[in-house]
Amino acid sequence: MSLSNSRDRALRERAEAVIPNGMYGHQSVRTLPDNYPQFFAKAKGARLWDADGNEYLDFMCGYGPNLLGYAHPTVDAAAARQQQLGDAMTGPAPVMVELAEKFVSMVGHADWAIFCKNGTDATTMAMMAARAYAKKRKILVAKGAYHGSAPWCTPRPTGTVPEDRAHSITYIYNDVSSLEAAVIAAGDDLAGIFASPFKHDAFVDQQMPDAAYAKRAREICDERDALLIVDDVRAGFRIARDCSWSLVGVEPDLSCWGKAIANGYPISALLGSNKARAAASRLYVTGSYWFAAVAMAASLATLNEIQNTDYLERTQVLATRLREGIAKSAQSHGFGIRQSGPAQMPLILFDDDKDFRIGYGWASEMLKRGVYVHPWHNMFMCAALTDADIDQALDAAEGAFKAMKTSRASLKPHPALLAMMASRA
Amino acid sequence: MSLSNSRDRALRERAEAVIPNGMYGHQSVRTLPDNYPQFFAKAKGARLWDADGNEYLDFMCGYGPNLLGYAHPTVDAAAARQQQLGDAMTGPAPVMVELAEKFVSMVGHADWAIFCKNGTDATTMAMMAARAYAKKRKILVAKGAYHGSAPWCTPRPTGTVPEDRAHSITYIYNDVSSLEAAVIAAGDDLAGIFASPFKHDAFVDQQMPDAAYAKRAREICDERDALLIVDDVRAGFRIARDCSWSLVGVEPDLSCWGKAIANGYPISALLGSNKARAAASRLYVTGSYWFAAVAMAASLATLNEIQNTDYLERTQVLATRLREGIAKSAQSHGFGIRQSGPAQMPLILFDDDKDFRIGYGWASEMLKRGVYVHPWHNMFMCAALTDADIDQALDAAEGAFKAMKTSRASLKPHPALLAMMASRA
Repeated sequence: MSLSNSRDRALRERAEAVIPNGMYGHQSVRTLPDNYPQFFAKAKGARLWDADGNEYLDFMCGYGPNLLGYAHPTVDAAAARQQQLGDAMTGPAPVMVELAEKFVSMVGHADWAIFCKNGTDATTMAMMAARAYAKKRKILVAKGAYHGSAPWCTPRPTGTVPEDRAHSITYIYNDVSSLEAAVIAAGDDLAGIFASPFKHDAFVDQQMPDAAYAKRAREICDERDALLIVDDVRAGFRIARDCSWSLVGVEPDLSCWGKAIANGYPISALLGSNKARAAASRLYVTGSYWFAAVAMAASLATLNEIQNTDYLERTQVLATRLREGIAKSAQSHGFGIRQSGPAQMPLILFDDDKDFRIGYGWASEMLKRGVYVHPWHNMFMCAALTDADIDQALDAAEGAFKAMKTSRASLKPHPALLAMMASRA
Repeated sequence: MSLSNSRDRALRERAEAVIPNGMYGHQSVRTLPDNYPQFFAKAKGARLWDADGNEYLDFMCGYGPNLLGYAHPTVDAAAARQQQLGDAMTGPAPVMVELAEKFVSMVGHADWAIFCKNGTDATTMAMMAARAYAKKRKILVAKGAYHGSAPWCTPRPTGTVPEDRAHSITYIYNDVSSLEAAVIAAGDDLAGIFASPFKHDAFVDQQMPDAAYAKRAREICDERDALLIVDDVRAGFRIARDCSWSLVGVEPDLSCWGKAIANGYPISALLGSNKARAAASRLYVTGSYWFAAVAMAASLATLNEIQNTDYLERTQVLATRLREGIAKSAQSHGFGIRQSGPAQMPLILFDDDKDFRIGYGWASEMLKRGVYVHPWHNMFMCAALTDADIDQALDAAEGAFKAMKTSRASLKPHPALLAMMASRA
């Protein structure tokens, strides 16, 4: 299949004039294979259409928001009903209370919720609440973990000052002795420990959380009167109907949510236990659109779907079928690959591919076959997938591996990727 | 008129259980007169209905987003059309380029745009871009100015550490010698100067910008190779169809936008000149919903209305009529009041009212008469106002001043307001 891209190219040229670098942040395709489109005209279910009308089976789900399928009728209807009533008004709508009640009822550790817009809003408030809790300062963060793009956490230090992380201490995810060393370094000033629900850093194999590590983090926070924070922005409701660490039997004091919680509508949340309530109550945190009702109505409808459908199990079954099929296909063509993390949030990396040239080649071949995969960021599977979609993806994978056997020797590393990796903190 | 509030009371009781303090941020009514409703069921044009069905003429406009009238048909239709196509997808939609082009064409100093969600996102990126520009650190901010609720700028320091403002220096708005002293304190490390388009701090009279101050800020940034930043989040497109400092003939390097730019849909923006483009290009800044297309389509439609209608002049005429009528009414009843700032973003403060008890009493009487005013934050007038609305507001004001003459001696200060004022940085 040969894809046209003339509209995308024209849009990129115009964007180059009026947007820094032509695009910014995680949705810039500057660091993706050259045939990846930058602009999308339409999305429905598990599918995307680019600006030139090319159709893709989408395994990125908007980098997380699409949980149930794009343009989900129940969620969109709830949002449209609220839009008729009001969105960003001079005060919140009653749906805010309903949403907080529903969310708190679904998340084991949570007694209260604060709604916001970005995942970074939720993680930044979590840090502030941890510091407010017992007037201590040190925040422990796993090295390489992504908690947002604010000065205290952005992966690229440009524009920040060293003081932004004066009281941050890093530890190695899943490594108890590293965590304990960081706690000792914090002394009597430990405010909180951040943990991703599992290790989902870019560029490296994902790791599920070790229960011993998660439990030790909980113990330390109890011993030292600090707050344990699970940053569930990316993974929330994709591996459990509760906070992701419910799977390892550990309840944090605070959890951060976003992306999937409203199936694409813009809302994020900080949830907390009663232990953290007084601290959260003393913060001044707000935003122009934090009280807007439409995204709340969409989130309430999404939580209902999460609670009352088998979206999770269906997605897991299909994602596992995809994983097993890709493994078989890779092996039969002589490629060593590693598929890490939960099947519905997979990362696929190639052996002996330090500069990602093989991964880029394969992703590029998949795209040519109408399947949008990511070569170094975890992917996302939505509940709108069908067995026919998995058939299509597996056909594409088979074709892509086959094509790679021929082209493998001539692959080159992607210059923008190399530059980007060099610039990370 | 006696207003029922049983639904609002019931919602507040439920909210108390699942939201810290029952509500947070600028839309908490904890620090407003006791009869102010917390929850709103509906908004249309210039009017709001609370959860109990009471109707108000709304002079807060959602604290800024409502520029053209709630539920504006043209804006809502553009948003709904884009919603049918796609919102938060795996990449931005073509409308992002159209919006950046249109926005840049309307704002004199701007050559590029970055879209985000919160006003605080835009101001924080502006700070980062200023620091990235020439690798300097000091940021000058007017004392008492609001630039968001992130650790570096939140008006209440709870949950922050002193390092968050290690390189912030304050100056007095409109005071050239104070600005120059701050510049001297920054030495050869001046990264940028923040300015509100006019002084719109809470609790104190607003001040229009002194042209000498604005021009001196521009000169200093040129002399010292630093960036001048106008934070137009609150006032953007409410006093001009360009950056607000176009009114004093000064072009900043960066301007921050939000609220009114999409008539309520959640989007904010950082705009910059070519001088700042390379610095902005080196930042890593992003958000889960920053590329979502619906709010961009709404913003494009809003910018079209801004460009092609007399929304601004109509609002100014009606707002001026309101201001003059209120002044006359206050005087005739023996109240000394000060109405400061642009007529369409007015702040009304009472003379001899240090603890705001008179202002609270008057606001409370206005609310009883179906007019929602704010006793210590600037208000906002939308373009959906009519002469009949102003008649209603002036009748209410007349009644409120009259009622105040009787109750004045028995007024008490509001305890939550006193506590809040004490907690500010």
